[in-house]
Amino acid sequence: MTEEEAPKSRPVVRLRPKAEARAIRHGFPWVYADELVTDRRTQGLAPGVIATLEDAERRVLGTVTVNPKSKIIARMLDRDAEAVIDRDWLAARLSRALDLRRRLFDQPFYRLVHAEADGLPGVIIDRFGDVAVVQPNAAWAEALIGDLCAALVAVTGVKTVIKNGSGRSRGLEGLPEETVVLCGAIDGPVPVEMNGATYMADVLGGQKTGLFFDQRPNHAFAARLARGARVLDVFSHVGGFALACLAGGAESALAVDASAAALDLATQGAAAMGQGARFATRQGDAFATLEALATEGAQFEVVICDPPAFAPNKQSLDAGLRAYERVARLAAPLVAPGGYIVLCSCSHAADLVAFRNASARGLGRGGRRAQLLHTGFAGPDHPMLPQLAESAYLKSLVFRLD
Amino acid sequence: MTEEEAPKSRPVVRLRPKAEARAIRHGFPWVYADELVTDRRTQGLAPGVIATLEDAERRVLGTVTVNPKSKIIARMLDRDAEAVIDRDWLAARLSRALDLRRRLFDQPFYRLVHAEADGLPGVIIDRFGDVAVVQPNAAWAEALIGDLCAALVAVTGVKTVIKNGSGRSRGLEGLPEETVVLCGAIDGPVPVEMNGATYMADVLGGQKTGLFFDQRPNHAFAARLARGARVLDVFSHVGGFALACLAGGAESALAVDASAAALDLATQGAAAMGQGARFATRQGDAFATLEALATEGAQFEVVICDPPAFAPNKQSLDAGLRAYERVARLAAPLVAPGGYIVLCSCSHAADLVAFRNASARGLGRGGRRAQLLHTGFAGPDHPMLPQLAESAYLKSLVFRLD
Repeated sequence: MTEEEAPKSRPVVRLRPKAEARAIRHGFPWVYADELVTDRRTQGLAPGVIATLEDAERRVLGTVTVNPKSKIIARMLDRDAEAVIDRDWLAARLSRALDLRRRLFDQPFYRLVHAEADGLPGVIIDRFGDVAVVQPNAAWAEALIGDLCAALVAVTGVKTVIKNGSGRSRGLEGLPEETVVLCGAIDGPVPVEMNGATYMADVLGGQKTGLFFDQRPNHAFAARLARGARVLDVFSHVGGFALACLAGGAESALAVDASAAALDLATQGAAAMGQGARFATRQGDAFATLEALATEGAQFEVVICDPPAFAPNKQSLDAGLRAYERVARLAAPLVAPGGYIVLCSCSHAADLVAFRNASARGLGRGGRRAQLLHTGFAGPDHPMLPQLAESAYLKSLVFRLD
Repeated sequence: MTEEEAPKSRPVVRLRPKAEARAIRHGFPWVYADELVTDRRTQGLAPGVIATLEDAERRVLGTVTVNPKSKIIARMLDRDAEAVIDRDWLAARLSRALDLRRRLFDQPFYRLVHAEADGLPGVIIDRFGDVAVVQPNAAWAEALIGDLCAALVAVTGVKTVIKNGSGRSRGLEGLPEETVVLCGAIDGPVPVEMNGATYMADVLGGQKTGLFFDQRPNHAFAARLARGARVLDVFSHVGGFALACLAGGAESALAVDASAAALDLATQGAAAMGQGARFATRQGDAFATLEALATEGAQFEVVICDPPAFAPNKQSLDAGLRAYERVARLAAPLVAPGGYIVLCSCSHAADLVAFRNASARGLGRGGRRAQLLHTGFAGPDHPMLPQLAESAYLKSLVFRLD
């Protein structure tokens, strides 16, 4: 059988004398390559192998997965060194994750597994009713993908499981890009209910897993402001904010995105809601479209700008903050007097204070004075380990303008 | 008539050459005493007088109120130096504030005015249906209290206005402590509907204005987790979290507070909700009660700790953070396996990161591992100026424990 059934015969990896065993004991889930004794034996381990982690004094710390090709060379799977990492173990982790989501949401549309914080390092699973999309972004999960798929079907009852192997994280783990249907079948976009809106998720061809669940509470907040409003949703993707605002009683919504495919899905969503007549799209570059709308003298009671990560890493931070400031500056004149603007960042490198300052500066340079009403993060189906909470990537700021 | 009707004849106050006129031009609302030319004439101004602010080059910056007795010697009232600060001006500010709250809330229970961010420096107004409680924590508002009360009645239609003159802020402005009914009448606690719960607000004798509206979104989040749960609400005051959890379907709620009067109001609220049988109280010191409950082996699926400010200022930061850690450590063993804990801070001096770290440390020392599900701040009826956003006092962290 698999090696996971015999913890005693596993390879042992060991922290270097100066490495921070304390942080790991206190819940930090990762060992970086320079913290581990990487002798020839460790270097020769197969990516994703299950091992026992010890500190420099040979005290056992737990069960880890090792990938000698990754900067994160070991990830904690279980504090119990005797844990058997098999289908039952995966099912227990999935059940625990499911319990939380069932408590939070009435309908089966959510991020079911958010990696480390849900005890499945590197694994993202989004659920769209009967369809689940798995991103196994760490080698151990790729190796156990069959068991993971079977456990997922058993625990949740989903009928279709898709493996989405796109994205940067897999490259860092030395994993190939590939998207395949692991079980069941899929024909066309999946309708997803969220905040009273209907979204069409393209689970095979879309960005990431097809739909972003992380903005759900921020969509809901914007929708509270949108009754009777003209809404502009820039960087709209499949209509995240725009359709939530229509569900909240907006008079009209205009979605702007560079992707015609995303806007087509947004239009399908609006039609499915019976709101097609109130919904319009404009395909093109967001900055150019903001400038064009200003030239046209367009005004909206609610404007949302939810751009891609302008500052994904430290190197891009300054340029990224300037881009966030520019978005705010160009969008500010489009907000009607007394109206609202929602500014979002999904940049890891731009922290809340830096992003808020860039946004406030942009609004000021756009000629507006602002009250900050709301600061939102990713929804609770995106839990974090407290030890990794610095990395909260998503911020959503809602301002009222003069 | 009053001086406000003749802006040209107002006193002029002037920034010192090195003072930051730029920050004020960009929306910073305050001038500190060391930034203003404080000649004998300025020192002789009556607290709360309306004046014209100029920069060191005599360029007009706007209409301010001056209080030579306060460290915040001038507060911006209006960027327009010609603005007349009278009943109509107050009514316009109140109308703008009311528009936002009407959009946000179905029922007339909210913080109507949150000081600087709502354009009324130093003024807090909470609305409890037909009753409004005003805290005029700056001298100008005390001087104009009659006009403010009249404008408030005219704009909102409230029948009773109470001036609550308690609290530290008034002392800093040289204002006396006094609580009086300015118009209308009041007989007993006012029932307040929020998140489906009923709270009894003691608007004459209670803490601050009688009820804390700021935790509303965090109450709502806790309530989502509380279906079927046994709930423990420590530092409960009038039952903020406990009653919201009962409204959300909790099996039972136990409220702990040092104040018998607050617990009595909480009990009245539970009775008004028809939930009296599910609600219990325990009067006493919170720390001692947490320890006693642990000794008794008590367990709850949801535990909330919303203590008073342990770190109200920089001097108290270290001791305050230790107190937050202690709360988390003592509460952790009371959370049933897989249950939830809500930890709150209303300390200005403890920022989000410091409070989160103290909380995570306390949970760890209490023997638990945690996922962070939610980070919440004060609700949107507590807007902030972006320039003062560093001072966000309220943080609410929701963890799920192993």
